[in-house]
Amino acid sequence: MLKLYYAPDTCALASHIALEHSGASYETVRVSFAAAEQRKPEYLAINPKGRVPSLVSDRGVLTETPAILLFVAQSYPRAHLAPLEDPFALAQAQAFNSYLCSTVHVAHAHRMRGTRWSDDPATIEGMKRGAPKSVSDAFGLIEHGMLKGPWVLGEAYSICDMYLFTLAQWIEADGVDTAKFPRVMDHRRRVSELPAVRKSIAAEV
Amino acid sequence: MLKLYYAPDTCALASHIALEHSGASYETVRVSFAAAEQRKPEYLAINPKGRVPSLVSDRGVLTETPAILLFVAQSYPRAHLAPLEDPFALAQAQAFNSYLCSTVHVAHAHRMRGTRWSDDPATIEGMKRGAPKSVSDAFGLIEHGMLKGPWVLGEAYSICDMYLFTLAQWIEADGVDTAKFPRVMDHRRRVSELPAVRKSIAAEV
Repeated sequence: MLKLYYAPDTCALASHIALEHSGASYETVRVSFAAAEQRKPEYLAINPKGRVPSLVSDRGVLTETPAILLFVAQSYPRAHLAPLEDPFALAQAQAFNSYLCSTVHVAHAHRMRGTRWSDDPATIEGMKRGAPKSVSDAFGLIEHGMLKGPWVLGEAYSICDMYLFTLAQWIEADGVDTAKFPRVMDHRRRVSELPAVRKSIAAEV
Repeated sequence: MLKLYYAPDTCALASHIALEHSGASYETVRVSFAAAEQRKPEYLAINPKGRVPSLVSDRGVLTETPAILLFVAQSYPRAHLAPLEDPFALAQAQAFNSYLCSTVHVAHAHRMRGTRWSDDPATIEGMKRGAPKSVSDAFGLIEHGMLKGPWVLGEAYSICDMYLFTLAQWIEADGVDTAKFPRVMDHRRRVSELPAVRKSIAAEV
């Protein structure tokens, strides 16, 4: 059975939602960031990066949200979580998710995890101050083009919606003026009401 | 015909190599960063992110290296650029490339592109000072586990090798002590000798 290692309020929620939506048989294992469990040898043996999510299968361990989402979509094709039959459309989905991991999540991480890039307290504080603008800039492109509507890829709900929803959970805390992003906020609300999403969030509390 | 917008010495080289290796019919268009062409309306109409690579097809525009690499691999399956028939193995490939874009390339960008995350000169300088350590940390995981050998995924050369090779071009300039990474450096040398790689690099000069 698949086993998802997650921590609450992290991007692992996207993989959790995908598993729940797919109909997969899976269980979740909570990693306590408060207890720094992600840095302990037991967890580093699973994922040497010391991050979540990690998805353990009988084939081995998968990490990185865009990869886990693609794996779930391909493993449970009847759930129609991605345009698997069309390489161009699938690449568009992967491009969206790649933007989320390399630009949106990274901008957010400058508020929360500046120690990834500097051990200088003043630099880390400077990164925090920059986060509202860089996160806002990153969501600007989503608001004004990348989010096709009603769902990210257009008519079909997909792994991209799950991932965007997850990162959009953080934008108030990142100091973003949400009034500038009515389409992102409306998308977040609609995704939040889906049964698989409600169930996944409830299970992480 | 496919059209790749690139700039020399950027991650666009990975997509260039993949196209060359695949046997695709394609042409390249050079974007001059020195002339800030990536910020001009003509280019922003193609890629609103103002970055390279962009791959223009008759279906539309693709961005983000991991997505373009997957698209090329899926569109030219006879070139065997990725384990397309095995969802778990393909997800491992995507996980590797996702790590490159969201961790390795991002660590490097703190030396080159700090203005993405701050407009404060002292913070930008602080980010530069942190880059040698964070880039080194990121390559450490590749050296000690992620690079299976002889190629990233094991016996088969793939899109992961093209992308790793591209980012590994920069590690001396990032201030990394290459003596710590003999496997990465050996991999870089072996990839550099492949005909499609030599041809792509020569075409970008």
